[in-house]
Amino acid sequence: MVKEDPKILAGKLQPWLARLRTGRPLVHCITNYVTVNDVANLLLACGASPVMADAEEEAAEMAALAGALLINLGTLNSRTVRSMHLAAASANKKGIPIVLDPVGVGATSFRTSTAQALLREHHIALIRGNISEIKALALPLTDQGMGGTKGVDAQESDLADGVQGRIQIARKLARSTSKNSSGNGTIVVISGAQDVLAGADGPAFVCSNGCAVMQTMTGSGCMLSALLAANAAVAYTAEDNKEDNLRHAALAGLAAMGICGERANTLIEQQQAGNASFRSHLIDSMYRLTRLEDEVKVEVAQD
Amino acid sequence: MVKEDPKILAGKLQPWLARLRTGRPLVHCITNYVTVNDVANLLLACGASPVMADAEEEAAEMAALAGALLINLGTLNSRTVRSMHLAAASANKKGIPIVLDPVGVGATSFRTSTAQALLREHHIALIRGNISEIKALALPLTDQGMGGTKGVDAQESDLADGVQGRIQIARKLARSTSKNSSGNGTIVVISGAQDVLAGADGPAFVCSNGCAVMQTMTGSGCMLSALLAANAAVAYTAEDNKEDNLRHAALAGLAAMGICGERANTLIEQQQAGNASFRSHLIDSMYRLTRLEDEVKVEVAQD
Amino acid sequence: MVKEDPKILAGKLQPWLARLRTGRPLVHCITNYVTVNDVANLLLACGASPVMADAEEEAAEMAALAGALLINLGTLNSRTVRSMHLAAASANKKGIPIVLDPVGVGATSFRTSTAQALLREHHIALIRGNISEIKALALPLTDQGMGGTKGVDAQESDLADGVQGRIQIARKLARSTSKNSSGNGTIVVISGAQDVLAGADGPAFVCSNGCAVMQTMTGSGCMLSALLAANAAVAYTAEDNKEDNLRHAALAGLAAMGICGERANTLIEQQQAGNASFRSHLIDSMYRLTRLEDEVKVEVAQD
Repeated sequence: MVKEDPKILAGKLQPWLARLRTGRPLVHCITNYVTVNDVANLLLACGASPVMADAEEEAAEMAALAGALLINLGTLNSRTVRSMHLAAASANKKGIPIVLDPVGVGATSFRTSTAQALLREHHIALIRGNISEIKALALPLTDQGMGGTKGVDAQESDLADGVQGRIQIARKLARSTSKNSSGNGTIVVISGAQDVLAGADGPAFVCSNGCAVMQTMTGSGCMLSALLAANAAVAYTAEDNKEDNLRHAALAGLAAMGICGERANTLIEQQQAGNASFRSHLIDSMYRLTRLEDEVKVEVAQD
Repeated sequence: MVKEDPKILAGKLQPWLARLRTGRPLVHCITNYVTVNDVANLLLACGASPVMADAEEEAAEMAALAGALLINLGTLNSRTVRSMHLAAASANKKGIPIVLDPVGVGATSFRTSTAQALLREHHIALIRGNISEIKALALPLTDQGMGGTKGVDAQESDLADGVQGRIQIARKLARSTSKNSSGNGTIVVISGAQDVLAGADGPAFVCSNGCAVMQTMTGSGCMLSALLAANAAVAYTAEDNKEDNLRHAALAGLAAMGICGERANTLIEQQQAGNASFRSHLIDSMYRLTRLEDEVKVEVAQD
Repeated sequence: MVKEDPKILAGKLQPWLARLRTGRPLVHCITNYVTVNDVANLLLACGASPVMADAEEEAAEMAALAGALLINLGTLNSRTVRSMHLAAASANKKGIPIVLDPVGVGATSFRTSTAQALLREHHIALIRGNISEIKALALPLTDQGMGGTKGVDAQESDLADGVQGRIQIARKLARSTSKNSSGNGTIVVISGAQDVLAGADGPAFVCSNGCAVMQTMTGSGCMLSALLAANAAVAYTAEDNKEDNLRHAALAGLAAMGICGERANTLIEQQQAGNASFRSHLIDSMYRLTRLEDEVKVEVAQD
């Protein structure tokens, strides 16, 4: 892996954070009811404007108003799955980027088949999941190893692939998805202690920001996906290469979320607090975040 | 606008706060899943008792047990819209006041037509929305200006009407709604940097309590509507003029919420915190609020 | 009531707390959307792993993966009630313990009949409710006193039964429920200022840990039920008498939750904070809780 000067990379990422605050993109979220409040407050904290709407009667209309569409499978049901498809078709038609968070895919066949249908029928700009979820989508069942997702958490055994292995799995999934009419492919983010980010080709990145407490709070993954949706909204606004823009905008999002996690972790250690206070500090940190430089831990990966 | 001595006005408002704490009204909420937890905790903080129930099988029965019914359109769907009508009919039949929060009305036709049907078929004691939402209900489409609601936030262009303009819009909406069998009309609250409160006739009020951070936290509007529903419960308990009681009880609610926002804002500035901590401080401030005097910023408006 | 040496009892309870942290049981929750986020974070704080899934398409499959199933009626509807039955049947088939939280039972006939059907058709390992909810399930309508549940809160009049009266009601309900194929009966917990815990026979316990603020925050009951589900998961893992294990594991849960409430209460008094901060401190306290001894207030009840 090539060490790039963090200041140079941070310099490339910084503007995407600022664009959120000035652009205030509207993010239409069809998301789970467990972490939806955190998702809304995180979006507001980063400068975006959230709207939650999952009725079939309005999903397409609301998606068409938005800068990005977030589809999170956390508490899917047959009604909201229909709304996801209606919203996704509407977003695709207008060139609005879609972020998919395949929560718990691999744990039940309903989740897996829903995610597969969304990927087959729509262009998805970015997919973010843990290693077990991404494996369930990237690999045939026989190659997924010891047994899929444990509820909504990654299996320990799936973590053994290493960064290089995870980048290959991300690329494999990205290559299996459809491009949009402008030729933009899908960016895949596998989050974990070290997040990896890769498309079908082009540079892949590794982000080491973050902290272990994020795994003991519900919603860290959901909030990250929402932030990446806001990033996608501003990345797709630019006229030039949208896939390449999104790669950098999403990397900025990964670093920003990780840095906020680190700051929140420092606070709960000082206060001898726990996962509930961590959540507040994490969102507060995003609210106060003005620059990424100096704290960014990002590398370009060689594969 | 006439400056009334804040202490005299506060003296009129103060008792409504105390009545919440002693009356502990049960507020039946059919509300969105984004901010429902905040709504419940805010109601508990002000002394009320929340119950959330949106199944068609029990909506009418639960509403009949309550002191007030809150209908919030935030994440409506066809099933919950049916429950809203069942609950509203039940509440009307028993003289239980209904508060409507038309979240996102104007953004999609489903939201607008649902709110219009609720207003047409039931007596609504109080409507609270931002200026874009209230305009979408008060004005014919051709007069709504540059384009309706941006998701669930007010359009910048709609804020240009000024306090006097907003009072006229509130009165226009209040005049278009049906009175109940006792002749009580609807009170309309348009919240913003300066909240306005007006019925079809009678005095209109302006409340300037509050702070800008409230716009960067999800749920400030939803919580305010819930508080106004609790206020409506105690206002409708009194034997005398219910509409006039509600005007003052609701004004007490507006001032109380704004004061709590100001106190929460002071705390997050001290702590260099953000919108997540603001939410906790806001609810905590309501929990601790015992008097409104000295901090109330309320005026009678002349139109 | 016999005073048992708190240190000896605490010594029996302590291991169940440790087993949560090492066992990390997966708890499948079909629960209400009001407090679901708190339920998830409390489960993570105690060491368990939550998964929320309420679609008919996956309820049975998800329950079969879990260590325990939590069914909470808070915001039930006809769709989720079907999922509750599918999940419960699946859990029973695999010997996975089910915890039922009959929120608001007694307030509407839909809630009461749903809880009765769940109890009739499935073996429930543990039921936790307030006194009004448990009375609504344990007693014929004519014996329930002045009028059932007030929304989701206990009726004042129902609190007059005293600890002995409540133990008899808990035993009555436990005796009316079906045993599982291994002969394990149901444990009933009635929470309040003094929690009581009893099965059809065997020792009954009283736990006096806790604080009054818990009644002014939404979700304290829901979180307790979730914790008891995690306790049930580890209690049913052991090979020996599952009902007896669960009695002690659940008592450990009651004490742990109460102790965390006391610690949170100390913090909000210091900070002059309210019910919102209390929630964070409660979950944080669970996150940091390593031992129960010295603070446990538990007694064996004589009946």
